[in-house]
Amino acid sequence: MSERTVFFLSDQTGVTAETLGHSLLTQFDGQKFRQVTLPFIDTEDKARDAVRKIDKSAERDALRPIIFSTLVQDELRSIVKDANGLHLDIFDVFLEPLEAELQLKSTHTAGRAHGMSNIETYMKRIEATNFALANDDGGITQNYEVADVILVGVSRSGKTPTCLYLALQYGVYAANFPLTDEEFDSGALPELLLKQRDKLFGLTISPTRLRQIRKERRPLGQYSSAQQVRYEIREAEKLFRRYDIPFVDTTEFSIEEIASRILDSKGVERRVRP
Amino acid sequence: MSERTVFFLSDQTGVTAETLGHSLLTQFDGQKFRQVTLPFIDTEDKARDAVRKIDKSAERDALRPIIFSTLVQDELRSIVKDANGLHLDIFDVFLEPLEAELQLKSTHTAGRAHGMSNIETYMKRIEATNFALANDDGGITQNYEVADVILVGVSRSGKTPTCLYLALQYGVYAANFPLTDEEFDSGALPELLLKQRDKLFGLTISPTRLRQIRKERRPLGQYSSAQQVRYEIREAEKLFRRYDIPFVDTTEFSIEEIASRILDSKGVERRVRP
Repeated sequence: MSERTVFFLSDQTGVTAETLGHSLLTQFDGQKFRQVTLPFIDTEDKARDAVRKIDKSAERDALRPIIFSTLVQDELRSIVKDANGLHLDIFDVFLEPLEAELQLKSTHTAGRAHGMSNIETYMKRIEATNFALANDDGGITQNYEVADVILVGVSRSGKTPTCLYLALQYGVYAANFPLTDEEFDSGALPELLLKQRDKLFGLTISPTRLRQIRKERRPLGQYSSAQQVRYEIREAEKLFRRYDIPFVDTTEFSIEEIASRILDSKGVERRVRP
Repeated sequence: MSERTVFFLSDQTGVTAETLGHSLLTQFDGQKFRQVTLPFIDTEDKARDAVRKIDKSAERDALRPIIFSTLVQDELRSIVKDANGLHLDIFDVFLEPLEAELQLKSTHTAGRAHGMSNIETYMKRIEATNFALANDDGGITQNYEVADVILVGVSRSGKTPTCLYLALQYGVYAANFPLTDEEFDSGALPELLLKQRDKLFGLTISPTRLRQIRKERRPLGQYSSAQQVRYEIREAEKLFRRYDIPFVDTTEFSIEEIASRILDSKGVERRVRP
């Protein structure tokens, strides 16, 4: 199958172009894509350089590239328009109807979306990240009162990455507490969790996947044995059901999806929107 | 100023709709937006519920809402289309030109973008996150050979959140090493960093901002004194210049922007594209 090259053009980070493009491209089976991000196109020279790169890849692939562009400044847009490819430009399409609806002219300023428009936003994300790190793996538990959500689950069920994602993406304060033999033996959650029962959210995972993940950490021993892994997961899910804790199976979901389901299920407000 | 409500509709997480919408809305000054994400609209009931919410807010605001939608399934799209608002739909606009260009029909399957299309991608992000956590703050230094990038900078200059973001967003292996009196006194970087010189990237920050951040951590003492903060930043930048290490000032940038600049400057490949 011949490859098609996809370019993400931006005068900023390229995150918006990448996100949009990825959403659309996943709708197509039967085509392989080579993805190239060209960020920080903020001068005419850089715009011309982007055109050269695109044209070169059009020649090499013998298929014209697809170009997702989020350039804001008109001079740069008009340079890039000459590149050989299918141009898909969100500002072209959506800015005009928005201007009409809001009865405002857009500012056409580069770098608004993921620039530091707001120091407060930056600080909130950093603080939430620090919170997630400090309250990881049951390390500190006295901060549960300020947590927005507390994830519970067995070791390596995805708690830490999910907490960090919630912090970085949404500024949400997420702590996590590992379920271990102490909880399984007693069949009960500790008092410090039960006091915050409405903040609890469970993560579970398939035994096969959990073994695979644990084996990379510790190849030998009980920790990654089939029996142990099955036991822990079964007991954890029993606890979720006993205390009526909503939970998701992280085997099937991406980090974005786990995070969104948690916010949705617990009704937690996003503190920032990057 | 009257508020305008903005809805992000998705049969999945809503990340794409949020990202697109945010990029466009930041182009408008003079209008306040109340943002609501309605994720996981994957049944006709949920679609009708979304319509009710949108219509209700249109009535309350006396201004029709703006609706960024990334619903894929036609039945759900047609229900949502009845909601009172300005509809901006990326599939409406971009799917047809893409189908024509690729000479393929799109699959119209929900949940491709941030669903677990790929276990490998999930694992790469988790592994990179574990790498960032293990190699944070100079904790472990023997893994620098497998790092894609090593961030250096003074305490609280933004190293940890940036490493975690690089890991979660792009699966990039980012370690970080704090610059302290040991480096400032000798005016030199340790051998273990110099061996990986082409992986080094510096973070700096304004003295005012650094003081502000440090004071939240430790309000008293030398750590957050104006003199100490100025001294550390000056010495760190001296080291960056001495060893010709590229660096950015994190005072001015969002986490996304810092991360993109690092990848761009070091030519580091994104291992995953969420």
